[in-house]
Amino acid sequence: MSAADLRRDSVWWGWGRTDGRPTLGAGAKQMLTEELGETKGVEAVPIESVALPAAQPLSEAVLDAAGGEGAVSTNAEDRLRHAAGKSYPDLVRVRAGSPSGAPDAVLAPTSAESVGAVLATCSAQQVAVVPFGGGTSVVGGVEPLRANFGRLVSLDLTGLRAVSVDERSQTATLGPGLRGPEAEAALNARGYTLGHFPQSFPYATIGGFAATRSAGQASTGYGRFDELVTSVTMQTPEGPVSTLQTPHTAAGPALRELIIGSEGTLGVITEVTVRIRPNPDTRRYEGWFAPGFEEGIEIGRALSQGGVEPDIFRLSNRDETRVSLALAGLGGLRKRALESYLGIRRRSEGCMVIVGWEGDPESVARRRELSAALLRSGGAVPLGRSVGNSWEHGRYEGPYMRDALMDAGVMVETLETSHTYSRIDALYTAVRSALHEAMAGQGAPGIVMCHVSHLYRDGASLYFTFLSARRPGGEIDQWHAVKSAACEAIVSTGGTITHHHGVGRDHAGYMTAEVGELGIAALGAVKDRLDPAGIMNPGKLLPD
Amino acid sequence: MSAADLRRDSVWWGWGRTDGRPTLGAGAKQMLTEELGETKGVEAVPIESVALPAAQPLSEAVLDAAGGEGAVSTNAEDRLRHAAGKSYPDLVRVRAGSPSGAPDAVLAPTSAESVGAVLATCSAQQVAVVPFGGGTSVVGGVEPLRANFGRLVSLDLTGLRAVSVDERSQTATLGPGLRGPEAEAALNARGYTLGHFPQSFPYATIGGFAATRSAGQASTGYGRFDELVTSVTMQTPEGPVSTLQTPHTAAGPALRELIIGSEGTLGVITEVTVRIRPNPDTRRYEGWFAPGFEEGIEIGRALSQGGVEPDIFRLSNRDETRVSLALAGLGGLRKRALESYLGIRRRSEGCMVIVGWEGDPESVARRRELSAALLRSGGAVPLGRSVGNSWEHGRYEGPYMRDALMDAGVMVETLETSHTYSRIDALYTAVRSALHEAMAGQGAPGIVMCHVSHLYRDGASLYFTFLSARRPGGEIDQWHAVKSAACEAIVSTGGTITHHHGVGRDHAGYMTAEVGELGIAALGAVKDRLDPAGIMNPGKLLPD
Repeated sequence: MSAADLRRDSVWWGWGRTDGRPTLGAGAKQMLTEELGETKGVEAVPIESVALPAAQPLSEAVLDAAGGEGAVSTNAEDRLRHAAGKSYPDLVRVRAGSPSGAPDAVLAPTSAESVGAVLATCSAQQVAVVPFGGGTSVVGGVEPLRANFGRLVSLDLTGLRAVSVDERSQTATLGPGLRGPEAEAALNARGYTLGHFPQSFPYATIGGFAATRSAGQASTGYGRFDELVTSVTMQTPEGPVSTLQTPHTAAGPALRELIIGSEGTLGVITEVTVRIRPNPDTRRYEGWFAPGFEEGIEIGRALSQGGVEPDIFRLSNRDETRVSLALAGLGGLRKRALESYLGIRRRSEGCMVIVGWEGDPESVARRRELSAALLRSGGAVPLGRSVGNSWEHGRYEGPYMRDALMDAGVMVETLETSHTYSRIDALYTAVRSALHEAMAGQGAPGIVMCHVSHLYRDGASLYFTFLSARRPGGEIDQWHAVKSAACEAIVSTGGTITHHHGVGRDHAGYMTAEVGELGIAALGAVKDRLDPAGIMNPGKLLPD
Repeated sequence: MSAADLRRDSVWWGWGRTDGRPTLGAGAKQMLTEELGETKGVEAVPIESVALPAAQPLSEAVLDAAGGEGAVSTNAEDRLRHAAGKSYPDLVRVRAGSPSGAPDAVLAPTSAESVGAVLATCSAQQVAVVPFGGGTSVVGGVEPLRANFGRLVSLDLTGLRAVSVDERSQTATLGPGLRGPEAEAALNARGYTLGHFPQSFPYATIGGFAATRSAGQASTGYGRFDELVTSVTMQTPEGPVSTLQTPHTAAGPALRELIIGSEGTLGVITEVTVRIRPNPDTRRYEGWFAPGFEEGIEIGRALSQGGVEPDIFRLSNRDETRVSLALAGLGGLRKRALESYLGIRRRSEGCMVIVGWEGDPESVARRRELSAALLRSGGAVPLGRSVGNSWEHGRYEGPYMRDALMDAGVMVETLETSHTYSRIDALYTAVRSALHEAMAGQGAPGIVMCHVSHLYRDGASLYFTFLSARRPGGEIDQWHAVKSAACEAIVSTGGTITHHHGVGRDHAGYMTAEVGELGIAALGAVKDRLDPAGIMNPGKLLPD
């Protein structure tokens, strides 16, 4: 197998491209020092000093099932690149040169049948399998946890990237290994879009979107990924399962909804059919400023319950608004000019709102007018398109900023939840307080940023980002204490443990709070039936 | 228990109210004779001559769990009224005085805890349980099939009818025993609507809507019932399961989607939280006439893919258009005047389209204009609001017409499916041909009516109604032959066996075609975990 087959086009120790990476400006560094105290910078070790456990040999049967030598790599860098996702603890460990284990080999079969053969063989031979799409999980979804298995392989889906389009039905059948931009380019070439643009878009894959119930920045308009999927095929150790390709069925419990969100614990998704749309002629993004976070949520409620929500709605709390300005500036807009403008309008304590509409020019204009009326009546003031365009320009850059913050010695992590409009203020307050308290309890003050990223008629999502000075040598304990405090706050307020990041390793312990013990037992019964040996992505999704 | 507790406010042998029932006019009778030949009328036997099997005694423990004497009936009429749903074979058997068995008792607990206690006790004592909401299943969903169980109870949910509304989040938490109009009235009183109006609305219940993945006449606009549900609680023999009341979660496979559509085979739904909307100020319904069925589907495709679909879209094929005119007339509109108008406009071979918009006047006007432009460019001509209002007036009257047809000796049955726009013409042709051939093969010509009832971006539903002269004494065999032919045609064309009627007894044999053997095994594993004794609604949903 050549290295290129496994796509080494990003840094191994963090996120994304090797060149032209955003860095922290002087203003950002000053703000961090002022708010977090002095931090001790730390960069990734050289790749040569990464210590991987020795690779255990695999049987000929497993290698043959994958497609033979050309579909197998035991190269150290390939193993390293499949040893972790992109969560903060993942990156802490990888950058320190000590990932939590590594697969014994990376298998990259090129057909669904071969995937099925690998799973059946691994099941018979007690080899754990971690399905690997883009490897962008931020919840420990691709950690090579072995449970009781002596051997573990990473099953890379790079080889499954077929695209076929049914223009009449506006659906596309996509291979799981297609990255966001690859799928989008193939659809754009025919005049369509999937409309799925999570921050992980440049590297995340179609299979991962389905397996983790992904939601993207425009999902308020286009629908979350689970809403876009019409049918799905999954290979399991016991054989393939697939759902009918029809717009809807009332035939019993939804098997499709068992496969979506299964995070590789039941099998490997090998084909996904999704609804697509004509690629919009017009995209209009704007910045607005709401009087406050609660007031901004009220605007979101008015928009969604009025049926005039924009395709994109992102409302930042005051801290996120402030830090975003300091960290990244606002593109063409001068920060000071903006502050002066807002100060004059008595909105200097307000919250940034990004709104966007996509479609034909007439519908964008019409829908914008309806949204704008509610934004204004909620007390928001327009900042214009340059702010919106600046957001668009940087919409996938967040993870680079995380790397830069980690380089600077900052603990930086995100988590997300959702609740009804009746309970969202309580949820926001509880999680924010828990994060502040926990960070202070770990010995350093913190910043808690939050934004609403998705609107529903009955509620909205909350996406938190928190920063604090890392505790050198104690990063994982520090992270765990803070993350746990936030999760407990979510659970005790009745919010969901995840709105779109998924469960993975990090949230598995909270699944009982989510669906109850009998719910866990029901999901466990499905797992036992489809994966009786328990080889599929051990330690993820369900509590031990 | 008083009889009123179990709501005897409809005829026992058919559908709906006892007074003011629609009947066949002279024109309709003439048309039937011309097209189906002479039919031999047959009415229901007197209730006194219905033969029910002797009721087996139940243990004190079961009766106590239900709530004691006041919550139990072994009255013959109550048992009869819980002995069947409203499918054609159900009604054939009931009208002939020989339903396919009857429950030994009807239990009507008044709390979720009591439901749970009944299920646990029945599980321990090997008593089969058939959950019963409105009893309106048209697929054999409430048949008292005993499998290997010596005793069987019908679990009537009339006692669970709580309503609570969260106005800020626009959600309502509803008891499963609420009938459509009860729930709607409670919401209307607060200014809201559920927007769920299936033809069974007057008698069907909230629990049934959830358990069967119901879709209603306005579901294109408001969403199907499964899309309205945000969370659900189900009692099972092993205990309760419930999902979080949040707008969305990415926490794994969707337990909610396992409960919805489970048709009483896993447990009993005891609480449903749904999204509600402000009750619309304006409802505008119109009739249009499309040049043909295929052309009408193209209009539906343009509307849905253009994002300007009406809330209600119902496109009848030529036979349904013709028969509807003959059977029911069109309210205020004179049939001959309509035909003359259409003839002049060269649309006499065309297809009726009912379209409707609901909301505030401005949004209705705006959306109507957008829809109307596409209707016109698809070749449809407007028939005006009186046709739409006439449809609205009769929207729940179809089942009465079925009773009248059965009185007149006509076999009359419905079935429904869906497919993508690429395959819907093939599906329509296959099912229509299969029905015609099978009816002819049973010795009598038939009429095959069809309409599109729900639009999606990727496809649409097809709802078939077929009529033929009944074969006296051989009704069930005749029905089975015709129904099977249609189901085989659906399966072989890759359509779904049901778009919104559910699986019940009639479609259970086709579930393997729907989700495959391993899919069945996965669903079966959930059943085994939640209902290890197999007492829940035996013989439904999953193939034997």
